[in-house]
Amino acid sequence: MALIVQKFGGSSVRDAERLNNVADIVTSTYKEGNDVIVVVSAQGDTTDDFIEKAAEINEKPSKREMDMLLSAGEQISAALLAMAIERLGFPVVSLLGWQAGFDTSSDYGNARIKKVDTSRLKKELDKHRIVVVTGFQGVNRYGDMTTLGRGGSDTSAVAIAATMHADLCQIYTDVDGVYTADPRKIPAAIKLDVISYDEMLELATLGAQVLHNRSVEMAKKYNIELEVLSSLTRRKGTIVREDNKMEKMLISGVAKDDNIARISIIGVPDKPGLAFKIFSKLSSKGINVDIILQSIGRNGTKDISFTVEKNKMEETLKLLSSYTETLGASSIVSDDNVSKVSIVGAGMESHPGVAAEMFEALFTRNVNIQMISTSEIKISVLINKADSERAVEAIHEKFFETL
Amino acid sequence: MALIVQKFGGSSVRDAERLNNVADIVTSTYKEGNDVIVVVSAQGDTTDDFIEKAAEINEKPSKREMDMLLSAGEQISAALLAMAIERLGFPVVSLLGWQAGFDTSSDYGNARIKKVDTSRLKKELDKHRIVVVTGFQGVNRYGDMTTLGRGGSDTSAVAIAATMHADLCQIYTDVDGVYTADPRKIPAAIKLDVISYDEMLELATLGAQVLHNRSVEMAKKYNIELEVLSSLTRRKGTIVREDNKMEKMLISGVAKDDNIARISIIGVPDKPGLAFKIFSKLSSKGINVDIILQSIGRNGTKDISFTVEKNKMEETLKLLSSYTETLGASSIVSDDNVSKVSIVGAGMESHPGVAAEMFEALFTRNVNIQMISTSEIKISVLINKADSERAVEAIHEKFFETL
Repeated sequence: MALIVQKFGGSSVRDAERLNNVADIVTSTYKEGNDVIVVVSAQGDTTDDFIEKAAEINEKPSKREMDMLLSAGEQISAALLAMAIERLGFPVVSLLGWQAGFDTSSDYGNARIKKVDTSRLKKELDKHRIVVVTGFQGVNRYGDMTTLGRGGSDTSAVAIAATMHADLCQIYTDVDGVYTADPRKIPAAIKLDVISYDEMLELATLGAQVLHNRSVEMAKKYNIELEVLSSLTRRKGTIVREDNKMEKMLISGVAKDDNIARISIIGVPDKPGLAFKIFSKLSSKGINVDIILQSIGRNGTKDISFTVEKNKMEETLKLLSSYTETLGASSIVSDDNVSKVSIVGAGMESHPGVAAEMFEALFTRNVNIQMISTSEIKISVLINKADSERAVEAIHEKFFETL
Repeated sequence: MALIVQKFGGSSVRDAERLNNVADIVTSTYKEGNDVIVVVSAQGDTTDDFIEKAAEINEKPSKREMDMLLSAGEQISAALLAMAIERLGFPVVSLLGWQAGFDTSSDYGNARIKKVDTSRLKKELDKHRIVVVTGFQGVNRYGDMTTLGRGGSDTSAVAIAATMHADLCQIYTDVDGVYTADPRKIPAAIKLDVISYDEMLELATLGAQVLHNRSVEMAKKYNIELEVLSSLTRRKGTIVREDNKMEKMLISGVAKDDNIARISIIGVPDKPGLAFKIFSKLSSKGINVDIILQSIGRNGTKDISFTVEKNKMEETLKLLSSYTETLGASSIVSDDNVSKVSIVGAGMESHPGVAAEMFEALFTRNVNIQMISTSEIKISVLINKADSERAVEAIHEKFFETL
């Protein structure tokens, strides 16, 4: 008998039909002799509806009250799912975040899980009940409702799996696993059976948002085996687990991220401390910088280019322009017509030729590379957005469709 | 500075406009220098929508999960009201039943308040915050969500007023007070300035459902002054408080109840123990009997008539018919085309002529009386439903429109 945590996202529980489908998956797992803890998100558009309702009343509601409002969403879906499981004749109980022991920080809207007091969860499993837990939420030290922010429900599920020492944590979504590329764009994309935590982390940051990084990081830290699978197809999904050299693939996937803009600061004096000045300024305003590229100094000046999220471009430009003089820059230019295309694979550390193969693939399709960034298991290039589909195709063909 | 508890029902908070209106009432009270605790019901049809959603999934969901689902309703309205108050620039915090210290029994769907731990409420008032509390809900000793059943939010408000020693508990509804008769039916109906707890209790049971009995009983027990008023008109409402002989009115109101059916058991042997047998049987099935009338025995047999809620008539008949022989009854007849019309007034105890005046009023309009029931402060008659409007008019005219 194993303990299995199953997490279902908003689209998996969006209506009665989907809830009954989920109840069927959950009770099938239970019937096989497993203990089951289910973590649910709010139904379909509930959260968006709540945000809209709030906006009608107050354009800038406090985050505390927003969390009070939003956390009702999972309460609804958890109760309804419990009812669907009851109807099938199985013992079940739904628990809110605070009842399930989720003790969080007080950062309303983006709370961190501090600990999970598992006593209630254990008591319910001892009674042989299926336990349905509201994801995305907890309670802070003041006894107030908090929500965990983006990827919150995945994180809730992994936190339960970690503290309850679950054997498997299944993340049910609307895709049936992790692919070597976006299967809607690249028909030849291959579903992976296994991927390592690190590869999954790189893919998540690269715009292939199957799992949120927070949950993968936590799974890695506590060595929780994840399975990403679809609540509709019921096929085996992709397992995310500790890197196993024996099975290591050279490249595990190609990802594309269009939500990006490039900014270049041209002609700054070639002296120390400049990068620090610029990036600490941006960081203090909550602007995250991704790829950074600094040209080698020439004639006493150099250029610094970096990428930010597309919706931060205007703010970044405004911030820097008031600063151009202090920086001694001759000009600042920007381009949001760019894409970042990346390949990820734990295998590439020991294969120095991978980058060259990727660049070759791009060259054969006449794709110009603006910036390059590499890590041990990832290579990213910044290119014209117009070239990006073609680039992904070329790279995928190179690594996955040829012998 | 006074402490005022204000309770707003579902229609008072049904949308953004109404919520803003409530926020205005609440903050006006606060601006006058009062401490304010606000108790809210779920918005408009939320509860019905939830019940419908649940029914789609499970025709007989457990009461525990139903409470988990329903209690999300007040959470939504409390958070939204807090946001509306924030927008007006006032310090505010919303609290769920369990956060506000509502400790209840475990009768899901119909929980009783065991105690209110006021520490959090006091702490928030000490910070000069307006406190918005979800009505209708609490938490039992297992730490599970419970709801209080019918009239629950009124009861929540009175419970807070009682334990916090509030100076006044205002119940905002969609009527602007307690009238001598239903003002939609009797244009001459008069709004009462004051009514006693006992009169209010009789009126509530008589189908003039302005306040639920539970809340009035609790207010009486703890001597909490209630005010029933409208959230829309902002006029002074009706004060419900301890009987004050000096102000006592002869009659405080006329009420009509159509949700009633009469059942008669004809020709049962005139011997002891029969009434006990019949009514203990009904009570064991949760059927509440209202007026009971037993004829004087004649020729060794007697008839027993009583009234039940209209929707319990079929069940009652079925129960009794399987029992006719044991009872030795010759037949059982029923009629759901009846109305109960009642007058209530603490003054009538010392005025024996009140009943006669009421019967006279009915006689002059040719209304036939089927059954009569009296208490110290109430006289009820059962009549044909077709006569009921006319009967109320006649009685109202007699007691309120003539010198």
